[in-house]
Amino acid sequence: MKGSEFKSAKNSNETTWKIIISYDGARYKGWQRLGKNAEANTIQGKLESVMATLCEKEVLVTGSGRTDAGVHAMAQAAHFRTEANLTSAQILGHSAKYLPEDIAVISAEKADNRFHARYKVKEKHYLYCIDTGLWPDPFQRKYAWHIHEPLDLQAMKEAADYLKGEHDFSAFTTRRSKTKTSVRNLFSIDFDTKHQPFLRIRISADGFLHNMVRIIVGTLVETGLGQRAPGQMPQVLNGKDRKAAGLTAPAKGLFLEKVVY
Amino acid sequence: MKGSEFKSAKNSNETTWKIIISYDGARYKGWQRLGKNAEANTIQGKLESVMATLCEKEVLVTGSGRTDAGVHAMAQAAHFRTEANLTSAQILGHSAKYLPEDIAVISAEKADNRFHARYKVKEKHYLYCIDTGLWPDPFQRKYAWHIHEPLDLQAMKEAADYLKGEHDFSAFTTRRSKTKTSVRNLFSIDFDTKHQPFLRIRISADGFLHNMVRIIVGTLVETGLGQRAPGQMPQVLNGKDRKAAGLTAPAKGLFLEKVVY
Repeated sequence: MKGSEFKSAKNSNETTWKIIISYDGARYKGWQRLGKNAEANTIQGKLESVMATLCEKEVLVTGSGRTDAGVHAMAQAAHFRTEANLTSAQILGHSAKYLPEDIAVISAEKADNRFHARYKVKEKHYLYCIDTGLWPDPFQRKYAWHIHEPLDLQAMKEAADYLKGEHDFSAFTTRRSKTKTSVRNLFSIDFDTKHQPFLRIRISADGFLHNMVRIIVGTLVETGLGQRAPGQMPQVLNGKDRKAAGLTAPAKGLFLEKVVY
Repeated sequence: MKGSEFKSAKNSNETTWKIIISYDGARYKGWQRLGKNAEANTIQGKLESVMATLCEKEVLVTGSGRTDAGVHAMAQAAHFRTEANLTSAQILGHSAKYLPEDIAVISAEKADNRFHARYKVKEKHYLYCIDTGLWPDPFQRKYAWHIHEPLDLQAMKEAADYLKGEHDFSAFTTRRSKTKTSVRNLFSIDFDTKHQPFLRIRISADGFLHNMVRIIVGTLVETGLGQRAPGQMPQVLNGKDRKAAGLTAPAKGLFLEKVVY
């Protein structure tokens, strides 16, 4: 199966579709299908099942990357290639009819046959939502991390500034690869306090390592709680040791907001 | 049981507590406990069970009114009377610890012993959320009514204007009482389009009949879809016939926003 993920559409009868998907990840085991088992509760598995009935053939849906169990997406990007002669309206209509209510295909457009949802990514934008209210908002219980102790926003911003730019982010990932690079270019970390009592942290980069956003947020929260100084950040980065960074923030507060190609 | 709901605290050892509750009604059978069965999935039942363990005695929690199955509340008001010597912090702490995550007691304060959460209501504010997006937002699937056909907002406003003021709202309720008045004073209907693609309709009155907000919204939506003219509204009101009004909007879009005493 792995091999087929790498191929582009060589068959000239194949059309490549780029789709954008919004999903509430609360009840899923994450994006990635578990082996060939489409019944396992994953976003990719659900999409492939529904697209297969439309294309009347097995379909591989390749996402821009995985999202973990419980992580949400406002606009995940993916592609699939098919010989079926489809229109955008058919893909949207079929998806709306057969996908569960917590997954929506919000756009489908023909792409160049060399398009690849994972390899062609230029930017990814994540949003992390923290509920700073006195009590956890019942409506946001699956969409925000509740922290009722006061957060020092200034300290968090100061710590965040050290992360901007190109760095080896080995300290901020759980799965280290010896062969692949851990260097990423982090474009921005913004703190949005317009929706009180929610603090929304937006992070964009040319790519992210596994758990990178959640570990960055966990480390920033520990800084905001006064458990670590903002000035420690360069040392954490340079040490490349996961143990020196903060806790992994809960999956439920994380949203993949946008993928740019 | 009914009799006890009417009594005020005659026992001078009793304290009256006014509490404000926020809840996601999606998985509940509504506010009202079904008989003595606290196990039935109701907001009142859950609150009474938790308050009973705090007060070490059976507790009656009286709400400002019922909300139907699937209806939400940002700030429902209720009261209970107890001989237990409690602090506000104890009530909030115990509630946060033992209530399910989709119910939160967000305020608890001592009230006058003559306070009654139902009889002393001066104003109620409801919000109804319509998702006018092309596809139903996966994150709002339990909190909004999705209508993708375009709505004529101007026609809806025009129809709504006829409802303002004091009227017999018999046409806008499913349960008619021959003994109680169906006259209510409707203070305002506002259309909030600030959170696109969501249309939020806010309705306030001195009180509401059963299903009144949902039938008003259903009738306004039929007007917005061009299925009825705004000028029909006075005739619907005056006819006092439920069948002349529109459909009952789904429970899931409705939120009790505020109760004023």
